[in-house]
Amino acid sequence: MSLNGARGFASDNSATIHPEVLAAIARVNVGHTFAYGHDDYTQSVQERVASSFGEDASAFFAFNGTGANVLSLRAACRRFEGVICAESAHLNVDECGAPEAMAGVKLLTVPGVDGKLTPALVESRIGRIGEEHVVQPRVVSISQCTELGTLYSVAETSALADVAHAHDLLLHMDGARLSNAAAALGVSLREVAAGVDVLSFGGTKNGLLGAEAVVLLNPELARDFLYLRKQSMQLASKMRFLAAQFDALLSDELWRRCAGHANAMAARLSGALRDVPGLTVTRPVQTNAVFAALPPAVTASLQRDYPFYVWDEPVGEVRWMCSWDTTEEDVDEFASAVRSALVGAAA
Amino acid sequence: MSLNGARGFASDNSATIHPEVLAAIARVNVGHTFAYGHDDYTQSVQERVASSFGEDASAFFAFNGTGANVLSLRAACRRFEGVICAESAHLNVDECGAPEAMAGVKLLTVPGVDGKLTPALVESRIGRIGEEHVVQPRVVSISQCTELGTLYSVAETSALADVAHAHDLLLHMDGARLSNAAAALGVSLREVAAGVDVLSFGGTKNGLLGAEAVVLLNPELARDFLYLRKQSMQLASKMRFLAAQFDALLSDELWRRCAGHANAMAARLSGALRDVPGLTVTRPVQTNAVFAALPPAVTASLQRDYPFYVWDEPVGEVRWMCSWDTTEEDVDEFASAVRSALVGAAA
Amino acid sequence: MSLNGARGFASDNSATIHPEVLAAIARVNVGHTFAYGHDDYTQSVQERVASSFGEDASAFFAFNGTGANVLSLRAACRRFEGVICAESAHLNVDECGAPEAMAGVKLLTVPGVDGKLTPALVESRIGRIGEEHVVQPRVVSISQCTELGTLYSVAETSALADVAHAHDLLLHMDGARLSNAAAALGVSLREVAAGVDVLSFGGTKNGLLGAEAVVLLNPELARDFLYLRKQSMQLASKMRFLAAQFDALLSDELWRRCAGHANAMAARLSGALRDVPGLTVTRPVQTNAVFAALPPAVTASLQRDYPFYVWDEPVGEVRWMCSWDTTEEDVDEFASAVRSALVGAAA
Amino acid sequence: MSLNGARGFASDNSATIHPEVLAAIARVNVGHTFAYGHDDYTQSVQERVASSFGEDASAFFAFNGTGANVLSLRAACRRFEGVICAESAHLNVDECGAPEAMAGVKLLTVPGVDGKLTPALVESRIGRIGEEHVVQPRVVSISQCTELGTLYSVAETSALADVAHAHDLLLHMDGARLSNAAAALGVSLREVAAGVDVLSFGGTKNGLLGAEAVVLLNPELARDFLYLRKQSMQLASKMRFLAAQFDALLSDELWRRCAGHANAMAARLSGALRDVPGLTVTRPVQTNAVFAALPPAVTASLQRDYPFYVWDEPVGEVRWMCSWDTTEEDVDEFASAVRSALVGAAA
Repeated sequence: MSLNGARGFASDNSATIHPEVLAAIARVNVGHTFAYGHDDYTQSVQERVASSFGEDASAFFAFNGTGANVLSLRAACRRFEGVICAESAHLNVDECGAPEAMAGVKLLTVPGVDGKLTPALVESRIGRIGEEHVVQPRVVSISQCTELGTLYSVAETSALADVAHAHDLLLHMDGARLSNAAAALGVSLREVAAGVDVLSFGGTKNGLLGAEAVVLLNPELARDFLYLRKQSMQLASKMRFLAAQFDALLSDELWRRCAGHANAMAARLSGALRDVPGLTVTRPVQTNAVFAALPPAVTASLQRDYPFYVWDEPVGEVRWMCSWDTTEEDVDEFASAVRSALVGAAA
Repeated sequence: MSLNGARGFASDNSATIHPEVLAAIARVNVGHTFAYGHDDYTQSVQERVASSFGEDASAFFAFNGTGANVLSLRAACRRFEGVICAESAHLNVDECGAPEAMAGVKLLTVPGVDGKLTPALVESRIGRIGEEHVVQPRVVSISQCTELGTLYSVAETSALADVAHAHDLLLHMDGARLSNAAAALGVSLREVAAGVDVLSFGGTKNGLLGAEAVVLLNPELARDFLYLRKQSMQLASKMRFLAAQFDALLSDELWRRCAGHANAMAARLSGALRDVPGLTVTRPVQTNAVFAALPPAVTASLQRDYPFYVWDEPVGEVRWMCSWDTTEEDVDEFASAVRSALVGAAA
Repeated sequence: MSLNGARGFASDNSATIHPEVLAAIARVNVGHTFAYGHDDYTQSVQERVASSFGEDASAFFAFNGTGANVLSLRAACRRFEGVICAESAHLNVDECGAPEAMAGVKLLTVPGVDGKLTPALVESRIGRIGEEHVVQPRVVSISQCTELGTLYSVAETSALADVAHAHDLLLHMDGARLSNAAAALGVSLREVAAGVDVLSFGGTKNGLLGAEAVVLLNPELARDFLYLRKQSMQLASKMRFLAAQFDALLSDELWRRCAGHANAMAARLSGALRDVPGLTVTRPVQTNAVFAALPPAVTASLQRDYPFYVWDEPVGEVRWMCSWDTTEEDVDEFASAVRSALVGAAA
Repeated sequence: MSLNGARGFASDNSATIHPEVLAAIARVNVGHTFAYGHDDYTQSVQERVASSFGEDASAFFAFNGTGANVLSLRAACRRFEGVICAESAHLNVDECGAPEAMAGVKLLTVPGVDGKLTPALVESRIGRIGEEHVVQPRVVSISQCTELGTLYSVAETSALADVAHAHDLLLHMDGARLSNAAAALGVSLREVAAGVDVLSFGGTKNGLLGAEAVVLLNPELARDFLYLRKQSMQLASKMRFLAAQFDALLSDELWRRCAGHANAMAARLSGALRDVPGLTVTRPVQTNAVFAALPPAVTASLQRDYPFYVWDEPVGEVRWMCSWDTTEEDVDEFASAVRSALVGAAA
């Protein structure tokens, strides 16, 4: 891929900045403000983010998803406490060991189905409480939507919050694609995060230049958060430009417009491929990802023109991500190319 | 301060984004690219940054100065090694313990004069080599320019590099304001960093939206750097937008234009205040900072209209920072206000 | 349990110090020596330990098994590297997160059978090499014998060493009960550790007061080990008294006499219970542990007189450990009590 | 030095185990007990240690001084908090960076005089409270006696406790040689530690084989301590043998008998050298250390027969430590040798 206007299905991180976001950055690029978020504008946007999630919430901007997740765990866990999560969680497989190396936290993994935890799976990991030899669980971390594009219903999240709180644990939500989840569920941000104690609220994959927010819904976690953010290398000096991105994201529900469109493009893609012989859609298509199994030779041939990633090499599973800026034409052209490649392969 | 177009002297982090930088971001906001810097454009800008520092250099973008500094130390130090630096170093006083908490590194501080190390000061901290009870020095870290706005001449940096290398240590340069130093010295980036092994090259304080680069001049440090950047929460997904900022900074020496202007404004300010009774300029004005001692009541009265920071409360020392967007009118108006306040106080 | 001379089957950590060990401590309790192991006597014992494992080996005494294991990982792994081990490994389940919190290391677990890794299981965990998002495997860690009392044959260890080395990984052996393994296999210490790069060689569970040794069979790991031991809080000041314990352990193969006896007692116990109705021995009895499944009520009744631990509550599995000081009478009395309890329960 | 019965002045770590301590170990070497300190005997000794320090105190045995100190800091400090201590503190100069690398804690050093803090020095380090850029002080750590053999009076400790508590800080006492301090001051353990929140109570330098205790006088610190001890690699499996050492140390005030004797030997040594020309005693001799300045050639000649350490090479300062087992004859012979060497040098 290069800067020629073409779009692929590799990642929602491959997409552009939404014009409303860039305009918001330009709009606040006037005069001097106090650095590090201590300016009125950033305060107002932080409060706006927080108020989207309920009156007790506070919001702190961070640079990226790894940062937001590690900050969440550093705020929630004491030195001997751990985090129950799915084996497939981004935290576990794609953070280069940041939870362990930067937060000193052990991940207590469970297998999960399509990337999802259940109350029973969580409870299977709660044991040996009070034994000094064992990391004590403190956080249940779920991804909404999951790495596999699947969703928790509001009731499922609520049930996980209940089981976590019943055991005096906190619920963390890795919401790198929270907007996609809320859009797919047709609910508000407040509803999609109901029951959560600490949230990594993603923006970068949904049209921002680069900004995430840690939203603390449990006010007890907020006390020392400023120190942790600074120490964890996540404090922006020219904070107004992170704030402006979230200002735009929340204006006229840009988050829902962008994420809803990306979801619709994934539905369109999976719909177009439903009856193509030799292709299996391998996961429920609930948000902006389509996972499919293809013959390796077909994959290789398609990748020459359309960048995307192989997810699980041994089983030939690939991932196609749609973005806020994916067009219907992009989808139709790609679906047609897939169909041709498979028909050609079968011939 | 609010978004009303006014400018103060609080910090170069209070300043705006240079229009050429914002234009560069907009220019690359076209089509899809591979994420995480694995796109041709980012590669080309990284190489351009690196080539500004010499043929063996490699460059890695990061989010902020704390990140660039901690990354530098994590790459340079083994688990039992430490860093010789000035007591006044940003690393030591303003990173909320990130070197210790995130890199596990001990800082071996020396007093310094005007924030500067000397070969003799460095050697005073090299001792007990080979003793298992003692952190072994591995890095000498200097700030160019220093927290106090002072400069190392090219010869001084070279002498420090020599003493570091003679003891098998690496030289780290915290160049959050490297451009100000190079502009003040009238040298190239390559010259200002000659002898350095690992460099934190700042952009945010010099007109960027938010981007820094770790430049590895010693190629041995580059081997594992990608892992460390990811794990240290400094890997941007939409990397092209960090790259674009450095692209702009290096085009037609924008770095020198911005930093040279900020330096000139500090010189203008200190010049305008030279003969004002009751005011002492407390540090050599070599870059874009003016440090001065004022009566506390005068300071308080000035701060009502002009935001700036008290640096050393007990001695009444204040810091006035100039930025790329500080104007001659800003300086003249402020100098006049300082003069009036002091005259009023003396009356 | 109290200090009344009774013995149970709770743990080999419940046992006494072997008289030859206590005598060795008393024997060196004469005059002054240099502290921290820099005395001739400690050097000679360290070399004696090392030479038991081959000419390239070096040995470093530590306080406990957690210390020896964490030291091993800190010496072997860089900041972004991880450790392939069995889910049931002591490292993973019983170190209160020390590998993660004190070494910053991620454990890359595989299920294992009876606590054992195989080359295929190891290779299933080697993937995404060179991807910056993923912890890179550096160490394969096996327990010899395992937490479940099972053994690797010399050929099995050799095959694991081969697969590790073929992928440029190191082989770590958690040998908290290495002597039990060597005694059971009828081989020397050198043979049981053949192919290993770094070894935690246990003594405490086999008749010592409290001492372990990290044996570095791969000489490249030795370079900085003294610093790591000190920093990791494992450097004894009066080192001669740790050395004396290993001096005794290696004299006339005390290690084999103690461990062989403990193994024999476990075999006697499992033999005595072979045909008892209502009891299933759940793991191969290869060293000094007997795992069995019992009705919970029988377990509870037995525990009133004989301390031992429930291993897996849901399935009613218990663990009976034999020690160097377990007697035939202890075993016979206990076997008889188990038999009576089961018969009573069945009646 | 070798195991020939000779004694030197290198370190109190060079000394032997007191026979009453070895006897206590042998006495409890009977039958099985629960491991990890969960046995009645260890509980009773722990309580005995604790009760020596007051009714709210709890005691936890650890392996060595580094371990006790790091444990204390891990229990007291959150992730962004630091420790005010003297530049000469063992914590700062002789732990190979363990506070930073293993606890993630920044040390906020002050110069001190003869190794001692004062309330004014402490307050000079308390500043920028509430600023996210700065490590927040949480602990004041003092050494009693200091690395330089000097003492805090009970009133001085009390004043430091007052200033710490007035700022909502905790007072940590590094009491590796607490017994020497209490003996010199002629007070009880409770009195010497009055005002302290967390204490590293040393035994190894005072006649034990190897054991220290962390005594938590502030009960709030005790809640999670068991987890931290295990994770920090300081949990002994055969704990009764650590407990027995403290049992002996507290019986008939063995701690005072041993430490008082060592102190008396240092006084005898400094007395014998008072009028020797060419020798200056450089620090107040208040406990079991004598610091003196000698011509380097004399030092070198003495070291051939009598092991001791040069403390400060540039100024020719040496350290002579007396131990519980130093005899009057040892002192007199050594004083005589020093005198002869100096007279010979002067001739």
